[in-house]
Amino acid sequence: MGRLSTLFAPERVAVVGATDSEGSVGRAVTANLLDSFTGEIVAINPNKDTVLGLTCYDGFATVDEPATIDVAVVVVPPTVAVDVIADAGEAGIENVVVITAGFGETGSDGAERERRLREVAREYDLNLVGPNSLGVMSTPVGLNATFGNEMASEGGISFMSQSGAFITAVLDWAAERDVGFKDIVSLGNKAVLDEGDFVAEWGEDPETDVILGYLEDINDGTKFVETAREVTRETPIVLVKSGRTDAGASAAASHTGAMAGSERAYEAGLDKAGTLRVESVQELFDYAQILSGQPLPDGDEIAIVTNAGGPGVMTTDAVGDSDLSLAEFGDETFERLREEMPDEANIYNPVDIIGDAPAERFERALEIVLADDNVSMAAVVACPTAVLSFEDLAERVAAAQERFETPVAATLMGGKSVGAGAAVLGEAGIPNYFDPARAVGSLDALRRYREIRSTTYEEPKTFDVDRERAREILESAARRDSNRLGVEAMDLLDAYGIPTPRGSVVSSPTEAEAVAEDIGGDVVMKIVSPDILHKSDIGGVEVGVSVDDVRDTYEDLVVRARNYQRDATILGVQVQEMIDLDSGVETILGVNRDPQFGPLVLFGLGGIFVEVLEDTTVRVAPVSESEASGMLDDIDSAPLLRGARGRDPVDEAALVETVQRLSQLVTDFPAIVELDINPLVATPDGVQAVDLRLTLDQEEL
Amino acid sequence: MGRLSTLFAPERVAVVGATDSEGSVGRAVTANLLDSFTGEIVAINPNKDTVLGLTCYDGFATVDEPATIDVAVVVVPPTVAVDVIADAGEAGIENVVVITAGFGETGSDGAERERRLREVAREYDLNLVGPNSLGVMSTPVGLNATFGNEMASEGGISFMSQSGAFITAVLDWAAERDVGFKDIVSLGNKAVLDEGDFVAEWGEDPETDVILGYLEDINDGTKFVETAREVTRETPIVLVKSGRTDAGASAAASHTGAMAGSERAYEAGLDKAGTLRVESVQELFDYAQILSGQPLPDGDEIAIVTNAGGPGVMTTDAVGDSDLSLAEFGDETFERLREEMPDEANIYNPVDIIGDAPAERFERALEIVLADDNVSMAAVVACPTAVLSFEDLAERVAAAQERFETPVAATLMGGKSVGAGAAVLGEAGIPNYFDPARAVGSLDALRRYREIRSTTYEEPKTFDVDRERAREILESAARRDSNRLGVEAMDLLDAYGIPTPRGSVVSSPTEAEAVAEDIGGDVVMKIVSPDILHKSDIGGVEVGVSVDDVRDTYEDLVVRARNYQRDATILGVQVQEMIDLDSGVETILGVNRDPQFGPLVLFGLGGIFVEVLEDTTVRVAPVSESEASGMLDDIDSAPLLRGARGRDPVDEAALVETVQRLSQLVTDFPAIVELDINPLVATPDGVQAVDLRLTLDQEEL
Repeated sequence: MGRLSTLFAPERVAVVGATDSEGSVGRAVTANLLDSFTGEIVAINPNKDTVLGLTCYDGFATVDEPATIDVAVVVVPPTVAVDVIADAGEAGIENVVVITAGFGETGSDGAERERRLREVAREYDLNLVGPNSLGVMSTPVGLNATFGNEMASEGGISFMSQSGAFITAVLDWAAERDVGFKDIVSLGNKAVLDEGDFVAEWGEDPETDVILGYLEDINDGTKFVETAREVTRETPIVLVKSGRTDAGASAAASHTGAMAGSERAYEAGLDKAGTLRVESVQELFDYAQILSGQPLPDGDEIAIVTNAGGPGVMTTDAVGDSDLSLAEFGDETFERLREEMPDEANIYNPVDIIGDAPAERFERALEIVLADDNVSMAAVVACPTAVLSFEDLAERVAAAQERFETPVAATLMGGKSVGAGAAVLGEAGIPNYFDPARAVGSLDALRRYREIRSTTYEEPKTFDVDRERAREILESAARRDSNRLGVEAMDLLDAYGIPTPRGSVVSSPTEAEAVAEDIGGDVVMKIVSPDILHKSDIGGVEVGVSVDDVRDTYEDLVVRARNYQRDATILGVQVQEMIDLDSGVETILGVNRDPQFGPLVLFGLGGIFVEVLEDTTVRVAPVSESEASGMLDDIDSAPLLRGARGRDPVDEAALVETVQRLSQLVTDFPAIVELDINPLVATPDGVQAVDLRLTLDQEEL
Repeated sequence: MGRLSTLFAPERVAVVGATDSEGSVGRAVTANLLDSFTGEIVAINPNKDTVLGLTCYDGFATVDEPATIDVAVVVVPPTVAVDVIADAGEAGIENVVVITAGFGETGSDGAERERRLREVAREYDLNLVGPNSLGVMSTPVGLNATFGNEMASEGGISFMSQSGAFITAVLDWAAERDVGFKDIVSLGNKAVLDEGDFVAEWGEDPETDVILGYLEDINDGTKFVETAREVTRETPIVLVKSGRTDAGASAAASHTGAMAGSERAYEAGLDKAGTLRVESVQELFDYAQILSGQPLPDGDEIAIVTNAGGPGVMTTDAVGDSDLSLAEFGDETFERLREEMPDEANIYNPVDIIGDAPAERFERALEIVLADDNVSMAAVVACPTAVLSFEDLAERVAAAQERFETPVAATLMGGKSVGAGAAVLGEAGIPNYFDPARAVGSLDALRRYREIRSTTYEEPKTFDVDRERAREILESAARRDSNRLGVEAMDLLDAYGIPTPRGSVVSSPTEAEAVAEDIGGDVVMKIVSPDILHKSDIGGVEVGVSVDDVRDTYEDLVVRARNYQRDATILGVQVQEMIDLDSGVETILGVNRDPQFGPLVLFGLGGIFVEVLEDTTVRVAPVSESEASGMLDDIDSAPLLRGARGRDPVDEAALVETVQRLSQLVTDFPAIVELDINPLVATPDGVQAVDLRLTLDQEEL
């Protein structure tokens, strides 16, 4: 069991601030505990003798064996909360749930209070939930240490939420439905315990089938990714991460002071963590239900069995919208369907067993398709008719599902006729909706999770690089106090085995000529200056310079730079081999650093594509080989790399390797805050990093 | 009132094939009519004396004044149905509902029977529903001329469906909900009356607030577009057109024999028709509910009022996903919110009036934001708390909505606490969901409909063109028996005022030289042959030919063509002015013909963009100026036209005019089946059609 097991399965819980004042949080918490908790409740309040029939203690000191208190629930005013929590730590209590508000979510006093709270928690190594939390629940021991109105019913979903109100809403909603929970935690301000801790705990909890979360930010992206990708191998994690949109992100910032972070980073990070991210509350619970009720499919192929053509078509459209595919039946299946179904039936998928079908016919058709090896899952779509009992149908569908151990979702299309049938399906863990698109969406969630489970997390490769030389280049830039580097740092790429065109940065016409002669043929010359960001705009780039012209061009470039800015720092002129852009594809490879997830590697088509179509994709570093390779697949213009228009495909292996080498570079050097190779030219023969810009944080060197 | 008004508001209905045999369709229809129809029922069956207490007649001949029968419902076997329908026509009956199946949906006998049915209907000018229909309903007169189990309750939705089973599903579902209908029709095989006819009828029906449809195809796209765009000015039309996806389309084809048609054509056609197309059953009814219950907004700005931060963020994300925008409040609104809301409240949109808000505070906040001129609609999002009565809240929200006549949607986030409040909201026509994304989606439907209503349908422009010359060019091609034309038909574009580069098709080296001299400067030369589709691949194009080389190049091109295909028809060589592709943007402008909607005009970025990114958009011709201009906005790479990367923007007006001129050409000449101008080069100075391919259908000339 995990480190937090006593938080969720306590035998003795103290309420610090227990009271019976009408309408108070302290009363609500105490009453909720009294309602259903199977263990002992210790009420603490120096101003009361008894509370709701419980003896009231002055403090931990007066309680028998205070160290055996598993959880202290704190509802005292914020001004005394930190002291109370220190007392709890002193008494040897490990778990503290701080319901008290008035910390980081308020002004600067609150922020200071939260800082002290964190210190105390660290000092006593406390598992601290909150502050500003609704509380925690755990159904097996009847623990309701919240001030909400509703206790969860028992089930396999463990749920964490950065919004306490959302928990109350979900419980009110679930009370009418067949949705049961194992643990619930209101994360509050996440001063100590955060989403990563609960994911770790529930990953080791055999009673948790599915982990659900509503999050507005993630405290420590790196920790979360590492934890979640382990846990998700056994237990699916379904998340709403809100603040997805610009509008939502600023609303989230004003709500919990959630750090904005970039949506692209969250997308990449949550993906790397192996979580199932959903966009709406409806999807959150649709996914939870099917993941806890149905087995995983062994493929992507779905069979549809219906008594109505139109709804069959709607269901098929939903399959077309999803990543599922319509199963192609084997010969034997066709034979059996032809034999056992009426002549008017359509035996092709979607199978239409027509309007006069009783429940038995549905069962037979379902059995026949489920027996087909090409079928990984099924949707049963039934319209009400005079000859069909939905309850009978539901029983038969549930029986067939159990026999074949293949996932099934149902669409009993109706309302007043559906009740009994829906109950039978619910009992069997088979989801049922009015809209067939939701049934298909839920089955597609199983496919997504199956895909996540079958992903092997390879370790990122470590290439043999010249790390010392890279460090020297960065340190020498730092000594110059230069935080924005350009082509003068091309050697950095070279040190990490990223191919660059031949050439170097020189500081005299004579040197320039020597380099050009060495290269042979025409060269490209660029002014090198940290003060000139857009070299082309000031005439700072000359292409196709012949050896004879190199000296003059050197002088011209320097003059133009001086004309642009008299006191510009000029580091020299880069003389570079000409790269034939026409035979290659311009790509961009870049890095920036996210506050939650660390370095993000970006890849996309370069040039005009980047600017106009923003056809790029990102991954959280370190990037493994399969992740790098996935980046190439992700972009819309991928066919350009693969030989569109009859051209030769570029060297994808070289591109994939370069992505990984850059990932290694930025992982090795946290001082590299931003880096862009644009263009990275990919040709059939390899890649060449033609231009470079990077930003350095000297503090990190 | 429309032509079909007596179909839906009959005073006298005959059932031909009335019977009391248990489980028969004839019994079900008769019993359903007896249940609630307010008019007279005439039972017809030569083999019965009475049916369910009704006197039974042998045929129309023995009925008193048979011409006063408003609707004949036909449930006789298919073999006698056509004769019975002829009898009805003979007797002077105008409306026939053919429930009998066994027509076009079955084999060739059925198809022949349907052909005869259509003939009879034409002969007697019958309004014929079906065949293979579930029947029709109209609630004001209690008409249930179907064999379903359920009668609709009264309301403002009129609903047509190409699936009878879907109607039974919807009615079963609606029986539990607050969803009422005016008319319902099961379209069946649409042998005579189709979706266009019902849209026309309901457009004139003051009792129909919203038209809903489930369609698998559209019989006559052109008629539908013309009718619907008129009707939608007063009455919204919300459609599921299924078979959207490839999988769905083939399922639809096997279900109703729906003509495939292209999804892009449907998309463009339904858009031109001013319909609100939705993708799921859930959206269909969500849209219906808000469109019939709430007024239209006067803008796109939404205010959110909530008692819970997290759900406020979720709602804001949903706004970010939609085409709505978060309202920016005026100073007075901030002032009033600051004054009246607690200090801890967040007075910025989304307005968070915090967890201790009673219903009165919700009401005040809602009133304050609705009074703001920048607010066009509001979403109220409430989580259950001890101090909030959802019922009280619902009453106050409904009252405020009514006072301000501004659309509101609610999210009472809960289940067991919601019932009474939801009922109050339903009564007031305010939609309520658990998931805030659905509330926002519904409000966005109002915005979409408002946008449709405010679109002015301009007549397509008629340019002054040389139609006769165009006809001659096409006819001369037809005389050559040439159905695939290339650059030799460039004059066709010229006749319609579409700029083409200078030059012409010549048939000797001497002529070629003369043309090149006339042009001056280098020229492009291309082999012209209907047998050679990919000219470049066989070396059939030479670019940058100087006047001196023109004669030799002529010979070379012909030799290459002969080498490729000895007996190729060679129409000559095109000698054309060089167009500087670098200074312009290559676009593609094309046309193809859709079986339902006629000519579709396609526009997109040309060259590699077309092939790899498929960045194109289509419209149904004739294309108006604003539609043509909308096409430029539609494509992702539009910024390339508008001067990305510091280039001059292209001449958009010339592009827009060229789209319209091409639309006029293909509208004038149905013989043009397909046409591609690729590239159409757009520069800051205008456009040039550089290459052309077209396919001709001689029959249409």
